[in-house]
Amino acid sequence: MLGLMQQWPLLCHKIVDHAARQHGHREIVTRSIEGPIMRTTYGELRERSLKVAQLLTRDGFKRGDRIGTLAWNTGRHLESWYGIMGMGGVYHTLNPRLFPEQIAWIMNHAEDQCLFVDLTFMPIVEAIAPAIQSLKKVIVFTDGAHMPETGLSNVVAYEDWLAGADGDFSWVELDENEACGMCYTSGTTGDPKGVVYSHRSNVLHAMIAALPDAMGVSSRDVILPVVPMFHANAWGLAQTAPLIGAKMVMPGAKMDGASIYELLDTEKVSFTAAVPTVWLMLLQYLEETGKKLPYLNKVVIGGSACPRAMTEKFEKNYGVEVVHAWGMTEMSPLGTLGSIKPEYVELTGDRLFDIKEKQGHSPFGVEMKITDDENIELPWDGKTFGRLKVRGPAVASGYYGGAGADQFDSEDWFDTGDVAHIDPNGYMQITDRAKDVIKSGGEWISTIDLENLAVGHPDVAEAAVIGIAHPKWDERPLLVIVRKQGKEPSREEILQFMEGKIAKWWMPDDVVFVEEIPHTATGKIQKTTLREQFRGYALPSA
Amino acid sequence: MLGLMQQWPLLCHKIVDHAARQHGHREIVTRSIEGPIMRTTYGELRERSLKVAQLLTRDGFKRGDRIGTLAWNTGRHLESWYGIMGMGGVYHTLNPRLFPEQIAWIMNHAEDQCLFVDLTFMPIVEAIAPAIQSLKKVIVFTDGAHMPETGLSNVVAYEDWLAGADGDFSWVELDENEACGMCYTSGTTGDPKGVVYSHRSNVLHAMIAALPDAMGVSSRDVILPVVPMFHANAWGLAQTAPLIGAKMVMPGAKMDGASIYELLDTEKVSFTAAVPTVWLMLLQYLEETGKKLPYLNKVVIGGSACPRAMTEKFEKNYGVEVVHAWGMTEMSPLGTLGSIKPEYVELTGDRLFDIKEKQGHSPFGVEMKITDDENIELPWDGKTFGRLKVRGPAVASGYYGGAGADQFDSEDWFDTGDVAHIDPNGYMQITDRAKDVIKSGGEWISTIDLENLAVGHPDVAEAAVIGIAHPKWDERPLLVIVRKQGKEPSREEILQFMEGKIAKWWMPDDVVFVEEIPHTATGKIQKTTLREQFRGYALPSA
Repeated sequence: MLGLMQQWPLLCHKIVDHAARQHGHREIVTRSIEGPIMRTTYGELRERSLKVAQLLTRDGFKRGDRIGTLAWNTGRHLESWYGIMGMGGVYHTLNPRLFPEQIAWIMNHAEDQCLFVDLTFMPIVEAIAPAIQSLKKVIVFTDGAHMPETGLSNVVAYEDWLAGADGDFSWVELDENEACGMCYTSGTTGDPKGVVYSHRSNVLHAMIAALPDAMGVSSRDVILPVVPMFHANAWGLAQTAPLIGAKMVMPGAKMDGASIYELLDTEKVSFTAAVPTVWLMLLQYLEETGKKLPYLNKVVIGGSACPRAMTEKFEKNYGVEVVHAWGMTEMSPLGTLGSIKPEYVELTGDRLFDIKEKQGHSPFGVEMKITDDENIELPWDGKTFGRLKVRGPAVASGYYGGAGADQFDSEDWFDTGDVAHIDPNGYMQITDRAKDVIKSGGEWISTIDLENLAVGHPDVAEAAVIGIAHPKWDERPLLVIVRKQGKEPSREEILQFMEGKIAKWWMPDDVVFVEEIPHTATGKIQKTTLREQFRGYALPSA
Repeated sequence: MLGLMQQWPLLCHKIVDHAARQHGHREIVTRSIEGPIMRTTYGELRERSLKVAQLLTRDGFKRGDRIGTLAWNTGRHLESWYGIMGMGGVYHTLNPRLFPEQIAWIMNHAEDQCLFVDLTFMPIVEAIAPAIQSLKKVIVFTDGAHMPETGLSNVVAYEDWLAGADGDFSWVELDENEACGMCYTSGTTGDPKGVVYSHRSNVLHAMIAALPDAMGVSSRDVILPVVPMFHANAWGLAQTAPLIGAKMVMPGAKMDGASIYELLDTEKVSFTAAVPTVWLMLLQYLEETGKKLPYLNKVVIGGSACPRAMTEKFEKNYGVEVVHAWGMTEMSPLGTLGSIKPEYVELTGDRLFDIKEKQGHSPFGVEMKITDDENIELPWDGKTFGRLKVRGPAVASGYYGGAGADQFDSEDWFDTGDVAHIDPNGYMQITDRAKDVIKSGGEWISTIDLENLAVGHPDVAEAAVIGIAHPKWDERPLLVIVRKQGKEPSREEILQFMEGKIAKWWMPDDVVFVEEIPHTATGKIQKTTLREQFRGYALPSA
């Protein structure tokens, strides 16, 4: 027996329709690439998105076509998304921080038909366009006056192009499971893999993200997504903000402390979200200038673990609530958020920050579990850690073209590649990456825990732990240390410092001192390189 | 091109799974029908729901079977819903305030196979059971010790029944569009009509209801749904509270001021919802006893228009935010909520209460429009009023058995039967019922506006306005008045009082004085009877 409720597919253009109808005058403020602050509204966003949809259709692009965007967070970028989705297309965000050859590989893999691009990235496009066989048109997010000289063919200034449309267009009616967006994950190994969002997953994710225990944003919020739209939908804010009718403030190309501060202050931003690196720059700027954050209520920090000192600074010095979050491109991206449940609501000081160090709990719509290597579920005791697996309506079921199928099991659980424990109240904490965790005699040792402990030694500048093959235990930990300038701690001093603070069998089998630990472009320790470097290392215990 | 996201159907049992997993120790506190306060948790709710599902299946009930419930808001009632839904059944809430013959008619129409019933309503069931051909089993929400003598056959005490199950059951996998719940609307005319909720509509409605600009509830809230579960899912709170993991406080059979106050106080309730009548009783109790509401933050008031004086009392005397809301059984039921948008956030005093008198704005997932009789859309100017029509994933597409098809148009717009205007910021205000509004020379006159104006006269106890047939204008307003005891205002005095306060053509063509105005069981003016009474009335203007 079926229910007798309306067929009302969850389509992204319904978000922009709602925003225009119920919040038509709410502003979208952009620091434009050309320089000045530009202002538009949800009413205008809808009108201009309809023009984009009309023009893409007139230009011959079709339902299901992938349309690339290589752009900062701006009002124009947002318009292009809703226009692309509204004509049945698939916006495909490209990360400008990748090497041009990687961007070209990804565009060819996705067979992008058209590309919207910011002025900033014209040199990249000019370099790679000839290598993109599918590319038919390039639309530059600017007006005729700012259009640069270019050798590209089939290129047009966005505003000139838009002037040719009257917006007399109806959103294409679609099945809610049709694709609407695409974003490649650039793993540390192997080719990038394409995640394909559906209208349904984007709409559900936007609703989940707005819930009071998730991001908890309302129409009264002013939202500054520093996290780029090319990072998994600006963590969903590109859909969530219009869904709830919140004013948006778009930072364009400038992410330095002074520029972000200026927007936070002049636009009275109440809510923002970004990776820790951005907040390091802002906090440094605030400390240098003595400025405060009177309007900001909440900051969501994710992308990599938020250092405890950062949370404490925001909360104690600036009265800003930090919500630590974790997610993945494959999860649209929200997985967990560290809002405070009633169990912890009375906590203050160190005990509160202990909880805020965890990545948080999953909202309705995100199921999670931890398992051992045999897929046996492990308890939520806040200690036992295992492979973190997730399931939900905004979690990928596979990658474009069938890549990475081994990350999904028969019951649709997606293996995140992270290792985590979960406490009895559902708060998850990442303890390692599955490929980094050390498997010693069938038990797991967290390299991140060992590293955090080692850097606590006053003479240690940086520490990394890797597993070294061992004849008896399979693997044992090797601690790699960069000493602070002018300091000469010995192997024994380091080990003595660690002793008693961890289980005996977690103690590193050896310590080596190096001048430098290899890093990725985003500052993470490059453990693959490190493992390569110490391949065949002879542990004294072996 | 389809998205590559997981198939994760929106099923109600996922709500209880999430609550048990992420909020397993959160309490559900019930004032039991037997008397004492009873406590359970979301963890136990899930276990007991699984037993209900297991036992219903064992007893031979099948996917799609309608299972009636005639019960107050209690933990047991909630368990029965999740158990019924979890085995693929359809909970069918029955309103005990209807006449027994109406309940029997509805049960026969829905072909209820089984019935869960509170002790309070055993006399009703004993009276009507023989007339329900489909009814195979009656389960009484109590334990063996409290089981009454009864002549019913196939009757069992809930706790005894539950003791026979171990809960080793897996939720039935269903299509999200399958029916999960049913609720009949009892219109003032014609037979009751069955609304059939789907798993999808209930889950989406629960997510929408929790949004910060809707009810805005989190896991830190303590929710007391005074509004009965047999009134459209306790306005969705039966699904929303577990979805967000909020503690629930269930009032059982006692809705008087002292009983509600006791729960608000001892359980530290932060959020509650009910019709104005309940709050009249509570406010009277508070005024008599001088008690305050230190824990309560927010009250949602709907079901009928919330009097301005009530909003002012809650906000000024008790510091409780009032959210005026409007909905219908056909809308699951939320339509609009009066949370404050940024446009109005600076308002205070009378100007704020002007906004709070409106029924509010629609969240994402509820589309609305106002039209004239020819279905031409009318502007959102806060003045022009027309038929209010709605659309959305939790709005009915029809009634059980095909009744009332004329309320749905080809584009799925559901005609609410209300007349309303909507202001430029999307705030809707009901001005009349479509069947009551007076159509004079092609223009509409709101009877509610005229009545509100007339009762402002110091000598008027009650006022009702109905349309009287008119040879030139089609209809003209007749004002029917009950005078205050000992007062004798004249026709001319009343009209003079109204003059200048409304458009000239809105002025009643005549005033009549009566001893009494007919009312429905719930206290509303019975305009059908009144129109009958004044059929053929000769207006002086005719």
